[in-house]
Amino acid sequence: MAKKEKSNKPKARIPRGFRDRLGAELVAERDMLGRMSAVYESFGFDPLETPAFEYTDALGKFLPDVDRPNQGVFSLQDDDEQWMSLRYDLTAPLARYVAENYDALAKPFRRYAVGSVWRNEKPGPGRYRQFTQCDADTVGAAAPHADAEMCVLYTEVIEAAGLGAGEYVVRLSNRKIVDGLFEKIGLDAGSAAETRLDVMRSMDKFDRLGEAGVRLLLGPGRKDDSGDFTKGAGLSDARIDSVIAFLSSGLDRDNSATLEQIAAVLGDTPSGAAGIEELSSINRQIPDGRRKSVIVDLSIIRGLEYYTGPVFEVDLTFDLRDEKGRPVSVGSVGGGGRYDGLVKRFKGVEVPAVGISVGVSRLLAALELKRGAGARVNGPVVILALEKDRMADYQAMAAELRADPDLRKIGVRAEVYLGGANFAKQMKYADKRAAPVAVICGEDERAKGEVTIKDLVLGAELSRTIADNAEWREAQPAQKSVARGDLVAEVKRVLEKKTE
Amino acid sequence: MAKKEKSNKPKARIPRGFRDRLGAELVAERDMLGRMSAVYESFGFDPLETPAFEYTDALGKFLPDVDRPNQGVFSLQDDDEQWMSLRYDLTAPLARYVAENYDALAKPFRRYAVGSVWRNEKPGPGRYRQFTQCDADTVGAAAPHADAEMCVLYTEVIEAAGLGAGEYVVRLSNRKIVDGLFEKIGLDAGSAAETRLDVMRSMDKFDRLGEAGVRLLLGPGRKDDSGDFTKGAGLSDARIDSVIAFLSSGLDRDNSATLEQIAAVLGDTPSGAAGIEELSSINRQIPDGRRKSVIVDLSIIRGLEYYTGPVFEVDLTFDLRDEKGRPVSVGSVGGGGRYDGLVKRFKGVEVPAVGISVGVSRLLAALELKRGAGARVNGPVVILALEKDRMADYQAMAAELRADPDLRKIGVRAEVYLGGANFAKQMKYADKRAAPVAVICGEDERAKGEVTIKDLVLGAELSRTIADNAEWREAQPAQKSVARGDLVAEVKRVLEKKTE
Repeated sequence: MAKKEKSNKPKARIPRGFRDRLGAELVAERDMLGRMSAVYESFGFDPLETPAFEYTDALGKFLPDVDRPNQGVFSLQDDDEQWMSLRYDLTAPLARYVAENYDALAKPFRRYAVGSVWRNEKPGPGRYRQFTQCDADTVGAAAPHADAEMCVLYTEVIEAAGLGAGEYVVRLSNRKIVDGLFEKIGLDAGSAAETRLDVMRSMDKFDRLGEAGVRLLLGPGRKDDSGDFTKGAGLSDARIDSVIAFLSSGLDRDNSATLEQIAAVLGDTPSGAAGIEELSSINRQIPDGRRKSVIVDLSIIRGLEYYTGPVFEVDLTFDLRDEKGRPVSVGSVGGGGRYDGLVKRFKGVEVPAVGISVGVSRLLAALELKRGAGARVNGPVVILALEKDRMADYQAMAAELRADPDLRKIGVRAEVYLGGANFAKQMKYADKRAAPVAVICGEDERAKGEVTIKDLVLGAELSRTIADNAEWREAQPAQKSVARGDLVAEVKRVLEKKTE
Repeated sequence: MAKKEKSNKPKARIPRGFRDRLGAELVAERDMLGRMSAVYESFGFDPLETPAFEYTDALGKFLPDVDRPNQGVFSLQDDDEQWMSLRYDLTAPLARYVAENYDALAKPFRRYAVGSVWRNEKPGPGRYRQFTQCDADTVGAAAPHADAEMCVLYTEVIEAAGLGAGEYVVRLSNRKIVDGLFEKIGLDAGSAAETRLDVMRSMDKFDRLGEAGVRLLLGPGRKDDSGDFTKGAGLSDARIDSVIAFLSSGLDRDNSATLEQIAAVLGDTPSGAAGIEELSSINRQIPDGRRKSVIVDLSIIRGLEYYTGPVFEVDLTFDLRDEKGRPVSVGSVGGGGRYDGLVKRFKGVEVPAVGISVGVSRLLAALELKRGAGARVNGPVVILALEKDRMADYQAMAAELRADPDLRKIGVRAEVYLGGANFAKQMKYADKRAAPVAVICGEDERAKGEVTIKDLVLGAELSRTIADNAEWREAQPAQKSVARGDLVAEVKRVLEKKTE
């Protein structure tokens, strides 16, 4: 029988490529998203929530680097035979929403969204199949005014999240300038769209793979470290040289100078000229205080196929180190751009749109690494349960602590130990919960009408400095017995000392 | 060509049974969840986030009223052939998480969670296939102390959400007392588990279907209004009489009296006696201030198969009316209970656990209906864009408004109109966005170094009272031109008047 039970027992395991998150990280993320949402709202964007599912045909196929048979998305067939997919970003569902509700919406339509997206990708270290995005989009406004606003909004929202003005940069390019390059090297609209897309996706990897890697991707193809082969775009050597020269074109610290340089090379192509004019106009609208944070940089491409004009990317300007001092690559913490054709897919008419997206997990990871380990965990005050028939008394103590206005202000948490363990194990539980204080009321204390307040933070410090175990036990320097009526006052005294 | 394009155009439509949500409703929900989360945290619960997917075998099959071939969940096969399902609640993933991380967790493990769940059900009015739950659970604590805490926590969290003390009731029953009934009528462990489950699910509908409906479900089966037939449990008439008597047993306003009544009938069955003793202990631990809010009521069953002891349900005590004054049924806004076997599925050993869940959308709907229509929408100040080459100036105005500390305090939002429309349409846009103020700076104002501030709320009021259109145009009583430097001060004056 035991054997049968065993064979029926499911194994507790999280699906591949997903993760669980607990406690402090989630609190930090919630607070960060709250600050970011407040910025979006202050700019006049309203929150929108769409469902996890979209019809597969409505979602479209715009994912970069699709390496899976089912196009990088999770899909299933509904019982009416229609295929549904989990959204892979927040932009495609927005396009569906706008097209479906077009007449009722105030236009331009300004919305922000925070939500999970899913990618059916090969899981890898730090590469998850579900993550959170935080986007803002303006639909129904043509370039370049809305694009300029997006650049400024990016700086505001990233700084609200917690980065300083010099710690990130918003890079700005224009898909039209890339089109200008294509026109220049004869890879224009007559060429296969697929080839142009391959070239752009290769260019997008310049940062990561360098010139040699991108040359292979533009030409014959490239085998990566794991042995996987990526088909090349098959360009001639001359064309590859031009693309590399474009990617390597010197960046000036001054956007006007950069744009003049580009104009000298691509200003005579129709697309290039249009793209340069848009970026110049955006550049003129950046307020002086933000000029150092918004930089024209042609090496950013953004892999998503639907971009049609200006594109943005947010990168960190400082090196992150892990707890062992090794450099950590976070990648870009945000990207966006103009996608004038995405609503047109449904409506038939052009509906200009531009948006930005923040990779919430990456940004949070960057902030955590920057802050360093040991962000303060706000553990609960633990009230020990020493007499099982006195649980209501213990719960009353917890309730008093939670209800005190001063303690509320410093965010106090309080709980009664509800397991079945003895005193020593209850103290271990309090330690594991990062409790700042344990409240002890056993038979002795109760007889005297007292409670004992143990300062666990001070106790831990002292236990490191006091060598003599016997001396320590004798003195109990970090605890104090007070009248039951003084419980709240004494806990307040201990906690307020810590938050000073 | 037009024809070809048309045939390729996807139709913009949201998948059946899902919904989009925009603006004020989301802000209200976020604020409500923030207040509820704060209560959970103050009780010592930490937030936990698990992914949308679980392996299908790990999730288990515990859904009530499964009427779909694929067991009520959305499932798909991963590329390694394993079946994954979207979670249908937050409890089954918690059991998987605890089993997977058992040794590392402080026990009892107290966590809360807020997240979407998915049910692959027949969509219907007000019945969605994705909705939000907000749960708290204590794993590793046996009845009845943790259960008593859950009852109190329920009252705290529901009141934090916005209901008053008399506007809801936490109903309390015990699956063991139902077992006692089954022992009494000879439907005990020897009977098919399926039959007992069918009986419980039928009992659970007593509220909604009344005696006649439940009699059919307990006996031969029942055809609903839509013509769908539900198979009956096939009980004899005598047994049906006993079940109905049980469900109809008079409720006393005093829990002790109710429990004595039940003891007189089922106190001689082993399960009944155990269940009554648990409820008595829970009842003794409810603080006096909460006694009126936590009521023993045997008619609540909760359909989920995994409950093993006390079960809870939160119901509203007032009638809701829609905007036409018709009564609206919201159903229960929360449910929960003890599920000592759910972690055991994985671990083989008993891990006692108890939890509560809040149906976020239902609770929010109840609060909205209670508050009545017309919760204040906080629209943005709209700065009109009258000279397209002055966009940077307009954006500077918006930035000044957002940056002012006083205006920040009242949550000001400000945006520049970014579309291409004329003055009249820009004003219409401001109306549609519920803008409290429009800022107007055209060529005339600019030449004089002024801006015009239009109070749209006052304007709308006046336009209802002033009959003469010409007089209205003449007076323009709701707008005022001030020096450009006084923009912030004047907007502040108008807005602060409204928040007084």
